[in-house]
Amino acid sequence: MSIDPDRLQPMANAIRALSMDAVQAANSGHPGMPMGMADVATILFDRHLKFDPSRPDWDDRDRFVLSAGHGSMLLYALLHLSGYARPTMDDIRNFRQLGSPCAGHPENFLLEGVECTTGPLGQGLAMAVGMAIAERHLNAEFGRDLVDHRTWVIAGDGCLMEGVNHEAIGLAGHLNLGRLIVLWDDNSITIDGTTDLSTSENIRARYEATGWHVVNCDGHDFDDIHRALKEAKEDDRPSLVACNTIIGKGAPNKQGTSATHGSPLGAEEVAAARRMLDWDAKPFEIPNAILTDWRSTGDRGRSAQAEWQVRLDGSEDRDAFEQRMEGVAEHTAAALQGHIRALAADPSKVATRKASEMALGPLTEALPQLIGGSADLTGSNNTKTAFTEPMTADDYAGRYIYYGIREFGMAAAMNGMALHGGIAPYGGTFLIFSDYCRNAIRLSALQKANVVYVMTHDSIGLGEDGPTHQPVEQLMSLRLMPNLNVYRPCDTIETAECWQLALSTSDTPAILALSRQGLPQLRGDGDAEWSADKNRCARGAYRLRASALARRVVLLATGSEVALADACAEALEKDGIGADVVSMPCLELFDAQDESYRSDLLPRDALLVSIEAGATLGWERYTGRDGLNIGIDSYGASAPAADLFAHFGFTAEAIVPQIRDALKD
Amino acid sequence: MSIDPDRLQPMANAIRALSMDAVQAANSGHPGMPMGMADVATILFDRHLKFDPSRPDWDDRDRFVLSAGHGSMLLYALLHLSGYARPTMDDIRNFRQLGSPCAGHPENFLLEGVECTTGPLGQGLAMAVGMAIAERHLNAEFGRDLVDHRTWVIAGDGCLMEGVNHEAIGLAGHLNLGRLIVLWDDNSITIDGTTDLSTSENIRARYEATGWHVVNCDGHDFDDIHRALKEAKEDDRPSLVACNTIIGKGAPNKQGTSATHGSPLGAEEVAAARRMLDWDAKPFEIPNAILTDWRSTGDRGRSAQAEWQVRLDGSEDRDAFEQRMEGVAEHTAAALQGHIRALAADPSKVATRKASEMALGPLTEALPQLIGGSADLTGSNNTKTAFTEPMTADDYAGRYIYYGIREFGMAAAMNGMALHGGIAPYGGTFLIFSDYCRNAIRLSALQKANVVYVMTHDSIGLGEDGPTHQPVEQLMSLRLMPNLNVYRPCDTIETAECWQLALSTSDTPAILALSRQGLPQLRGDGDAEWSADKNRCARGAYRLRASALARRVVLLATGSEVALADACAEALEKDGIGADVVSMPCLELFDAQDESYRSDLLPRDALLVSIEAGATLGWERYTGRDGLNIGIDSYGASAPAADLFAHFGFTAEAIVPQIRDALKD
Repeated sequence: MSIDPDRLQPMANAIRALSMDAVQAANSGHPGMPMGMADVATILFDRHLKFDPSRPDWDDRDRFVLSAGHGSMLLYALLHLSGYARPTMDDIRNFRQLGSPCAGHPENFLLEGVECTTGPLGQGLAMAVGMAIAERHLNAEFGRDLVDHRTWVIAGDGCLMEGVNHEAIGLAGHLNLGRLIVLWDDNSITIDGTTDLSTSENIRARYEATGWHVVNCDGHDFDDIHRALKEAKEDDRPSLVACNTIIGKGAPNKQGTSATHGSPLGAEEVAAARRMLDWDAKPFEIPNAILTDWRSTGDRGRSAQAEWQVRLDGSEDRDAFEQRMEGVAEHTAAALQGHIRALAADPSKVATRKASEMALGPLTEALPQLIGGSADLTGSNNTKTAFTEPMTADDYAGRYIYYGIREFGMAAAMNGMALHGGIAPYGGTFLIFSDYCRNAIRLSALQKANVVYVMTHDSIGLGEDGPTHQPVEQLMSLRLMPNLNVYRPCDTIETAECWQLALSTSDTPAILALSRQGLPQLRGDGDAEWSADKNRCARGAYRLRASALARRVVLLATGSEVALADACAEALEKDGIGADVVSMPCLELFDAQDESYRSDLLPRDALLVSIEAGATLGWERYTGRDGLNIGIDSYGASAPAADLFAHFGFTAEAIVPQIRDALKD
Repeated sequence: MSIDPDRLQPMANAIRALSMDAVQAANSGHPGMPMGMADVATILFDRHLKFDPSRPDWDDRDRFVLSAGHGSMLLYALLHLSGYARPTMDDIRNFRQLGSPCAGHPENFLLEGVECTTGPLGQGLAMAVGMAIAERHLNAEFGRDLVDHRTWVIAGDGCLMEGVNHEAIGLAGHLNLGRLIVLWDDNSITIDGTTDLSTSENIRARYEATGWHVVNCDGHDFDDIHRALKEAKEDDRPSLVACNTIIGKGAPNKQGTSATHGSPLGAEEVAAARRMLDWDAKPFEIPNAILTDWRSTGDRGRSAQAEWQVRLDGSEDRDAFEQRMEGVAEHTAAALQGHIRALAADPSKVATRKASEMALGPLTEALPQLIGGSADLTGSNNTKTAFTEPMTADDYAGRYIYYGIREFGMAAAMNGMALHGGIAPYGGTFLIFSDYCRNAIRLSALQKANVVYVMTHDSIGLGEDGPTHQPVEQLMSLRLMPNLNVYRPCDTIETAECWQLALSTSDTPAILALSRQGLPQLRGDGDAEWSADKNRCARGAYRLRASALARRVVLLATGSEVALADACAEALEKDGIGADVVSMPCLELFDAQDESYRSDLLPRDALLVSIEAGATLGWERYTGRDGLNIGIDSYGASAPAADLFAHFGFTAEAIVPQIRDALKD
């Protein structure tokens, strides 16, 4: 089929009309990008993208990521026009209104066909890298009959200027992800004005320097766009297609300027654009002939989907494939049961990062979905197991990714893998460097992507590397993030239990905050409530030690401080002061328990004392204004860990007298 | 003076010996980088760096930044050998021990000569960009007689792989910072192994693509290093000097491998290295001849410093220069007084981001140190004033920087400017994107750099852009950071007061969290305690409204929720329930007040209610377990702001009944 501008131009203009009208109706939004990229997107959907609007969950569909998420109307228009059940025209009429799935930025949890949540610039492209990794890995596992799709991205100058772009394209170039194609909306405009206000970079040369194929096109010439996309598909490197476009194309007085970027065009300019585009239809009406052309575009993928289904149904790998795509949540507990029994039978004093490695052994053996990695701290994060060989450009079947010194890129890629499906990604760095990838962690949580962050060296227990490497505020600040579970286990068994929980909550990502230093095993056969079948961490907190005497104190602690709390309780009881110890590996899960469970652990008639080697703000939720909060509200220091714990008052000798004093008050 | 390897090699080997011995003694640290870069650093200090160990605070010194901060022993060795008062040999003996200024990573607050705190990879180089901007700006203002120095950086592969590198070098290339020279320790090794495990990038081509000059050298050939550094100085672009080195050079069995990166060499290998380096001296002893050569290196800068002092003393700009370098802390209150009086006389309902712009007018007029900017949100952050013209590669005298879409790079550059001196930087982005630059904010705080972050669109009040753009947990998570003041003013006057405080705390950076939406003016002549001379925000919180009836409720609120708290109090008092309103623009300053002030505002006999459109965790510090916390513990949504506030329960109609119910309990 040849390129027919007479058919394509009205289709593209339908996107322009819907975009400017929806933004105008909402009196809010970004018309410039959808109008600028309408022609490119039309060719992409009409001629290249493999998709079936009736089966948005088709595993082998191409992924399309609108990294420049502010141009959300482009995506909503494409989904509606090509025949997805949603958004309806009413949804589009309600663009940016409460309850509409057509939110200001695309949200994967509101609409099928939105592969990921975008808006925080740079991350859509970085997530697409993860999707492209997932595709190559599953292709290596199941072959091209079942897995053979591309990942397409539309990105703007903002996406390319953000630091995460460097990390993402470096990783994509290194892994030679030839089925990743980025369409760059090269319009020379950012919010503040022309791009030359802030950048003088040769973007093409930079992409080439990282192993990418680069091709240019006139983003308003259908033939030229089609040619460039074909070239991109044919090259076996990842491709950047530089689409030379005019922002807001179609708005005669404002196009080509930043005025179209983030504001409604205004009624007058919308009317002028209608004339320029030769668009007579009323707002939110699409002429039948144009809609028919769009629907034929949407229908194109049906047969491909049907053929794929036939291949799957006839494949001897069908069960394995379906199990792979189903995820790990249901299978994690079984994978760990033997391991937990063995830990109970043979207690060991190891760092919880080591305990994590011990749990990862049986997990990675049993669950092929698990793909691990680290941002260049493999030996410190203990993330690699005997069952995870490196993934390389020559062998995508590998299950361990050397992400390099790219924390943000790693986190975003993991989001992409989790959203793609068939992969359960986990990756490591030091807890302090959660700061480097924080917004990607937030996007895990917002997108309900079950990514597991293995964050080791979780306190001043890190020791000599000093304050730049010692988390203080990170634990509590991550707990503040909605829909993220922060686990801080205290020993080998809690670590295994937390891994099990982390992989079982398929809509909630997890942070595992793990110690550098060795910790005694507190759980196991000696535990009165011991059972390998009962995950005591599941309620977030539990009474690890019940006072032998009349209870006057309850010590709340997490991770490496649980053993310290136990030592304090021991000392207090020797002095005749009854003390409970409550281990609180996950505050979020504890907060979700009913009032009776919570008040049983946190009684009103006892002094409540929190002990955690981190910032205290937040612990008052559990201890009240009259409790005692042992923590660190300054930066750490460089010294051996034991010296630091003593210096910052994390010893029973330092804490017990404070408790005695508080009891006197 | 010609290059004399017979003199230089023992000098370089002194660095190697001190580094391997100190790491061995500490049984912790990173010998690989200091040993690999010893030859390069020796040429740099001996022949190029402008410095005077007796005057580490010399304003016109070259800045030397060890971006690869884990190689801290390189810096400590250089400072000691060249004759700085500290570190002493005892300090070096105590490398990585509690109390030694020779911390695991270099800390600017522990040692003179350490220009900035490094370790979080990529940020040293990014801060150096800020230092180089500061130099060019002050040069443009005061001429080369007073300001004419270079910024030198040693960076490793990690620094170059981090995303912030892309932002930093893009900015440096765009501003054509020709006096910035980066010495890249090109050793092909990272922690996980060889760099080809994780990257395939052509780094030289990437730097060239962003406008840099690139030159190579053999990092173990003194002549070649010297040549490359001369070429770098002569080129008017920023320069990357790729120094081909062997990590751990001198350790015969381990050099060239990641084994030398982050672990002691071990006694046996240290002994073997002594033989290979022909180094007979005992640990922590430097032969006199070598020390003499090093001290002559240190003495080289004395005359340059003395000549500069003569020029300064004779300059008609002397007073202006000294005032510029002195900073803004003492002059801020005076600059704002007239503005605050005018606000009181003529109340206005504007967004606090607009109120910030209004305060910035007189501030930027009075204080030439202020250099503003935004990460491509100038019109939204309201950061540009009539007194700040753009800084460009053609005009460094400008005081406004279009940072581009580079939040992390902006924050790190601001750290560099603040540490350089003579500049008081402020920069804007949306509060949500504090996530993108969070670790640089942490480095502002750790380094005691008085950077002001103008963070607008500080809640769901942002409206239609939706959850990716609406801060929820950011406010409290930033409050968790030690030595950072988070200000959230409620009206024009509080905004001016908070600006005054932000610029007056010279050892503490500040976040100004500002609204997108208009807020009524609550302060001014109507305020019983009104005085333009009394900054009520200075104590962090104050009673804005005292109950007219017997007090049963105290409402605590910040920013846009203070007016809502006032409306709630109004409604409660109509119902006969006495209620105070406490405005809490800065929790950190409030926490620093004495017990009597705090307990006066937060009495035990009233129901304490916090109202803030953000996460609630942390507010229990003020309200206790029995208080009421009105907040948002989920992600936001896309809709007009008023609809969102209603949806999330931020109306007096939704809150007052909850208070009545709580009073019944």
